[in-house]
Amino acid sequence: MKILVVGSVALDTIETPFGKVENVLGGSAVHFSCSASFFASVALVGVVGQDFPEEYLQFLSSRNIDISGLQVSKGKTFRWKGYYEYDLNQAHTLETQLNVFKKFHPRLPQKYKNADFIFLANIDPDLQKEVLKQIKNPKLICCDTMNFWIENKQKSLLETIERVNIALMNDAEARELCKTYSLLDAARKIISLGPRTVIFKKGEHGALMFTDSSHFSAPAFPLEEINDPTGAGDSFAGGFIGYLAKSEDLSETNIRKAVIYGSVMASFNVEGFSVNRLRSLTHKEIDERYEIFKKITNF
Amino acid sequence: MKILVVGSVALDTIETPFGKVENVLGGSAVHFSCSASFFASVALVGVVGQDFPEEYLQFLSSRNIDISGLQVSKGKTFRWKGYYEYDLNQAHTLETQLNVFKKFHPRLPQKYKNADFIFLANIDPDLQKEVLKQIKNPKLICCDTMNFWIENKQKSLLETIERVNIALMNDAEARELCKTYSLLDAARKIISLGPRTVIFKKGEHGALMFTDSSHFSAPAFPLEEINDPTGAGDSFAGGFIGYLAKSEDLSETNIRKAVIYGSVMASFNVEGFSVNRLRSLTHKEIDERYEIFKKITNF
Repeated sequence: MKILVVGSVALDTIETPFGKVENVLGGSAVHFSCSASFFASVALVGVVGQDFPEEYLQFLSSRNIDISGLQVSKGKTFRWKGYYEYDLNQAHTLETQLNVFKKFHPRLPQKYKNADFIFLANIDPDLQKEVLKQIKNPKLICCDTMNFWIENKQKSLLETIERVNIALMNDAEARELCKTYSLLDAARKIISLGPRTVIFKKGEHGALMFTDSSHFSAPAFPLEEINDPTGAGDSFAGGFIGYLAKSEDLSETNIRKAVIYGSVMASFNVEGFSVNRLRSLTHKEIDERYEIFKKITNF
Repeated sequence: MKILVVGSVALDTIETPFGKVENVLGGSAVHFSCSASFFASVALVGVVGQDFPEEYLQFLSSRNIDISGLQVSKGKTFRWKGYYEYDLNQAHTLETQLNVFKKFHPRLPQKYKNADFIFLANIDPDLQKEVLKQIKNPKLICCDTMNFWIENKQKSLLETIERVNIALMNDAEARELCKTYSLLDAARKIISLGPRTVIFKKGEHGALMFTDSSHFSAPAFPLEEINDPTGAGDSFAGGFIGYLAKSEDLSETNIRKAVIYGSVMASFNVEGFSVNRLRSLTHKEIDERYEIFKKITNF
């Protein structure tokens, strides 16, 4: 097991201009795992309730995902209900039921503590720090976050960011966290806290990566079919860390490639609701889309 | 004279979070010309009033810009007053005074009619068509537009678009014109009207180029200093057409390079108010920034 992810496992009810689904498999740890498992073995730590469908557990196990760290607690699974309008970059939350997530504390099985690549998905930064206390000498730690934690637990979030190698967030979140319009300025501020690299996800506009001395701009894939943007950011992280774990090369050149693999996986994820597109996705399709990314940026 | 531009010449009053200026040199034809003149000779057709400052005329003449087609009419020069908030992608108009522009009809001096590269800047599509009637066998015609014409003169605008080789507009305008969220879909619809190539400008997110069989994604430059986004799109067009006119190569490979030169020029334009940054800009700086664009997209 190379990659460890700690994050949410959810039942999502989602409406977009292209359809509606109820109680489908979702959550940051799920989208991440399904994406990363195309590249390397993944261990998922999270929590579900007793109502969590057996078929979803079976599906996760059928991929390259170890769910022995997925706690099953008394109560109902975390639920998110939201919708998107034609501006698919913007999710509108209708309802968040924390349920079993309310009392969740990540407990890492012994065998997970030596994972090489750690992804702290978007959860309470206090929980992210609990994970950090349990892991031993990973090669890479990457964290994600969201506006809710920036607004409500900023001090704790900054303590998490200080300890990670790569900080990942949306461009709007970076601006909010760093109180600046300039993403270059935001990147510098975050890097000054500790991370070597920051990556700003921009949805349909691609992603930007900054180090203290360089900058990389990755385009988004011009999609024929977008059905559901939910989990795009986590799929991005999955492709990104998955590729790094597979290649075991943390040079900047390789991190740039990993950003493109992240973009490739996000582009597939949004083609279907939930993780449905990834169910039929092949390695050949991933490689072909990577090559298209090369073509669309070449000049 | 290689390039002909027909568009507005304006006195702009602009407020951004970084400063305020009054009655400064502006207008689509001005921003375009100042940018394009770094690459090839430009002829400007437009109109100003008797109040137009002599120093602005002298400045334009001092560049590689022929203003013998710039009409001076009785009355006041076209004025635009607007502001930007921290989201610099969005201009807020406070006042538009058409003044002498109200009765403007482009009259091309004889020597302009054989221009090789034509830019129909963002003006009434009826006027863009008047230009099309006067020109002879250009190598390339490119047009820009804006939401006002999409909403109020769509039929006329479509007739202009049918006759150009390259259609340029903002991404939001493309979506509005084509009634679709998908830029890929919008590109196909516009190409089906006539243009071989469409370019969607996305401000801080770069630009996208589509042909019937390919797609190119150009990043924006991560700017240290943005003072005034006014004219960014016209500076983009200036660098884009300027480079094509200089190189006289209309292959797709070269059009991609031209998109990057457009992005380079736009990135300089927004560093200062009005066209001030271009006053001190050097060819060396342009070439250096082009090389940075190569680095930031390389993977």
